[in-house]
Amino acid sequence: MNYYQQHQSRFLEGLTAFLRIPSISTLSEHKPDIRRAAEFVRQELLAAGLTTAELIEGQGNPLVYAEWLGAPGKPTILFYGHYDVQPPDPVDEWMSPPFEPQIRGNDIFARGSSDDKGQTYIQIKAVEGLLKTTGKLPVNVRFLIEGEEECGGEHIEAYVKSKPPRLKADAAVVCDTEMFAPDLPTICVGLRGIVYGELFVEGASHDLHSGMYGGAAPNPIQAIAEILCALKDRDGHIHIPGFYDRVAAPSPKEREAWARLPFREKEFTEQEMGADALVGEPGVPVLERLWARPTLEVHGIRGGFTAEGAKTVIPARAVAKISTRLVADQRIDEATGQLLAAIEGACPKGVKAEFKVLHAGAPSLTNPDNRFIRDAAEAMKQLFAKEAVYIRSGGSIPIVGVFDQALGIPSVLMGFGLPDDNLHAPNEKFHLPNFFRGIEAVARYLEILGG
Amino acid sequence: MNYYQQHQSRFLEGLTAFLRIPSISTLSEHKPDIRRAAEFVRQELLAAGLTTAELIEGQGNPLVYAEWLGAPGKPTILFYGHYDVQPPDPVDEWMSPPFEPQIRGNDIFARGSSDDKGQTYIQIKAVEGLLKTTGKLPVNVRFLIEGEEECGGEHIEAYVKSKPPRLKADAAVVCDTEMFAPDLPTICVGLRGIVYGELFVEGASHDLHSGMYGGAAPNPIQAIAEILCALKDRDGHIHIPGFYDRVAAPSPKEREAWARLPFREKEFTEQEMGADALVGEPGVPVLERLWARPTLEVHGIRGGFTAEGAKTVIPARAVAKISTRLVADQRIDEATGQLLAAIEGACPKGVKAEFKVLHAGAPSLTNPDNRFIRDAAEAMKQLFAKEAVYIRSGGSIPIVGVFDQALGIPSVLMGFGLPDDNLHAPNEKFHLPNFFRGIEAVARYLEILGG
Repeated sequence: MNYYQQHQSRFLEGLTAFLRIPSISTLSEHKPDIRRAAEFVRQELLAAGLTTAELIEGQGNPLVYAEWLGAPGKPTILFYGHYDVQPPDPVDEWMSPPFEPQIRGNDIFARGSSDDKGQTYIQIKAVEGLLKTTGKLPVNVRFLIEGEEECGGEHIEAYVKSKPPRLKADAAVVCDTEMFAPDLPTICVGLRGIVYGELFVEGASHDLHSGMYGGAAPNPIQAIAEILCALKDRDGHIHIPGFYDRVAAPSPKEREAWARLPFREKEFTEQEMGADALVGEPGVPVLERLWARPTLEVHGIRGGFTAEGAKTVIPARAVAKISTRLVADQRIDEATGQLLAAIEGACPKGVKAEFKVLHAGAPSLTNPDNRFIRDAAEAMKQLFAKEAVYIRSGGSIPIVGVFDQALGIPSVLMGFGLPDDNLHAPNEKFHLPNFFRGIEAVARYLEILGG
Repeated sequence: MNYYQQHQSRFLEGLTAFLRIPSISTLSEHKPDIRRAAEFVRQELLAAGLTTAELIEGQGNPLVYAEWLGAPGKPTILFYGHYDVQPPDPVDEWMSPPFEPQIRGNDIFARGSSDDKGQTYIQIKAVEGLLKTTGKLPVNVRFLIEGEEECGGEHIEAYVKSKPPRLKADAAVVCDTEMFAPDLPTICVGLRGIVYGELFVEGASHDLHSGMYGGAAPNPIQAIAEILCALKDRDGHIHIPGFYDRVAAPSPKEREAWARLPFREKEFTEQEMGADALVGEPGVPVLERLWARPTLEVHGIRGGFTAEGAKTVIPARAVAKISTRLVADQRIDEATGQLLAAIEGACPKGVKAEFKVLHAGAPSLTNPDNRFIRDAAEAMKQLFAKEAVYIRSGGSIPIVGVFDQALGIPSVLMGFGLPDDNLHAPNEKFHLPNFFRGIEAVARYLEILGG
C-alpha cells in the first residue's frame, strides 16, 4: 500500500473540514468564511511541505500562493483551483445540509465537493505525498488558489495580468472540470466564456391596479418576457445581430471524436437532468450545442407579487439575471456590445431596460498537441487504465484565458468530477474513488513531467 | 350645520380605527385581523342603530349582515362592501406605514382607505345619520359586508347563491368604484370580470449548471416568457383562440359619451401612472382598452436565483401569477377553458406547464335606464352640484354578477374613490372631501328613493 492509499481516511477528514466552511463568494455576509477557507488552504499547503504559503491581499478575496522550487532545470507547473463555492439555494432540496458533508455510497455530498474544493484538495495532497515520501518534487510547482471564481471577482485576473515573477511557469494545471464518464480519463481542451448580468426593467413609477390600468399600462415582467423571446427563439437560435459571426465550427476531426464518445442522449436527458426532452438548435448535435455554441440563458427572475394568494398588480419594475456563454472565437467586449444593443432594440415601448454586467470571461480553446497535455493524458491513462479522451466543456473558467494571454502558458484541464455531480445545484457531490485516484494521477503526472 | 357636518371628526376617528386593522385576506397569518375587522363592522352597524347585526360564518371569512326593515311598502336596498384589503407590498415604497393612517393635505393614506373600508364606512355613516336624526330610514336597508373580496373567496358567492330570504331586496348599492374626476359624480355601469391563477412550469428535476447544460436544457423561466409572448403580442392583442368571439363592442352612444369625458391621456400617463408611454391595442381608444377589452396580465413571477450576485443556474421550476380580465359577454368557464388550452398549446417542449385558477368573477354590464340608477345620479348631482356621468370600470367586482343572477337585482355602483387613489399599490389614499360628501350623498339617495 502506497502513501496515498495509507492516508485515504486522513485525506477524507481534511476534505470534510474544508467542505464545512460555507465560503460562498456571491454573498457578502460570508466574507469571514471566505477568509477561513483561504487560511485553511494556506495551512494545508504549509503542512504539505511547500516552502512558502501566503495570502495575497488585494481588491476582493485573498489569493493563496505557495511554491516549491527545488528542481532546477525542470519545468514549473502552476496549480490553479478555487476555495469559494456557489450559494446552496434552493436549500430545501438538499437531502443533507450543504455544509455538513455526508457520505452516501461512494459519494461525498456537500456544496463545493466537486466544484472545486475536492479537486483543489487533490492537487495539494498529490504534492504532499511526493514531498513526504521522497523529500522533493520531480518538477517545480507553484499554487495559486483563488476565492472569487463563482462570483466573477477580478482579483486573480488583475494579479495575473500584472505578470508577477512568482507566476513564471511552463504550464498551468487546472482541476475544475469533469470526466466524460466514470472511469474515462478526460482532458478538457475548450471552455465557453461568459457574460453575466442583471436586466432591470422599469415601467410606471409605482405598482398599478391591473383592473384600473390593465390594457394601457406597461408591464415590466411582460417586457422582460418580450426581450427574452426576441433574443432567443424557441429553437434556441440567438437573435443578436453579429453574434455568430466569430463562432468557429469544430473541426471534422473533433466532431468525429465527439461522436465516438459514450454519450447516451436518453440517459443524459432523463437520468442526469431528470427532464422529458432536450431543447436547443435543431440539427446541431447535443455535445456541439453544449460545447461549441453560444447560449442565452435566464438564471433568475423576480417581479411583482409572488407571495401566497392573489394580488392584481401591474408591477413597476422587474429584474432578471441573464447570461450568454461565448465560444471561440467570440470576444467579450464585442459580444457584450452586441447583447446590449440587442436588448435596447428588443425593449418594448413604455418601459426602460438596463443591463448591468456582473462578470465576464473569455472562451478558450487549446491545441492538445503539446507535452504538458500529452503527459497528463498518459498519467490519467496509468491510473484509470484507459486512453484519455479530449473533450470541451460548456462551462467557463475565465482564468484559463488569462493564463494564456498574460503568462503565455497553456492550461492542462485534468478534471475528476462526474457529469452527475450536480454542480451549482442541490445535492452537489464528488465521487470518492475519483478523489483518491485523482490525487495519485496528479502525482504521477508530476513524475512523468520530471522524468 | 347638519348631523353629518357636526360629526365629521368622529367619522374620521372611526375610519382611522377601521384602517388600523391589517385585514389582509390573501395572507393566512392575518386571519385574526380579518375577524377583528368583521367584528368592528358589526359593532359600527349596531351603533348606527340597525336592528340586527351579526356575523354569518361559513367557509372562509365571516360575512357581516345587518338590517333595518321598518319602512313597509318602501323599496329595500342591499348595501354591499368589503372589510378586507390587499397586501401592502412593496412596503418600503409607502411614505407612511400602510396600517398607520396618516392625513396629508385632504387625503388619508392607508391600505384600504379607498378600497374599500372608506367606502363601506360611508354607507354605515349615511344610515347612522338618518337613524340618529329622524329615528327611522326612508327605505328598508340590509347590509352584507364581506371579507374575501381581495382574495376571491367564495363565501359570499355561495351564500348569495343560496338565495336566503334575508337578502330579498330591490337593488344593491355598491360603493367600491371611483369618480371619473374630482368633483365629477359618477355612476359605473360596467365591470370587467377576471380569471386569476398561477402558472407553474417545471423543466428538469433539479437546478442545472448553465455551463454544463446550457444549450440543451429546458429553462422554465424562458418557457414562461415564451408562453406569455405567445398569449399576447407586443400590440396587446390576445392570441387565445376564440377569446374575442363574445366581446361586445360599446354602443356608438356609449363611445360618444366616453369621448366627452374629461380624460387627458398625457396627464393619465405621466402624472397618474408615472410612465413614459401607454401600451395596448393600436387604434382602440384608451378608455375602451381599459373598460371594454379583455386583458392578459402577469402580476408576479419568481424563479431561479434572485439574491445578490451571480449564480449560473438553469432553474428546475418557475411560477407566474397571471390574470385575464373579461368583458361582456365573455363567460368565465368558457374563457378559462380557452386560456388553459392556449397555455397548453403555447408550452414549449421540455417543460410541463400547469395553470391553477385561484379565483374568477364574471363581467357585468347594467342598463342605466332604471329608477335605482337614476335616483343615485340625482343624489350625486345634488351633493356634487354637477350632472353625473356614466362610465365603466376596468376592475372586477364579481359579486355584482352574482346579485344579478341569483337575486335578480341591479347593482348601483356609486363610487367615491379617485383615479389617483393608488388602489392595490403603495400609498393608497382616500380623498376626505369625497368621504364626507359620499356619506351625505348616500343618505340623500335613500331619501329620494323613499320620497
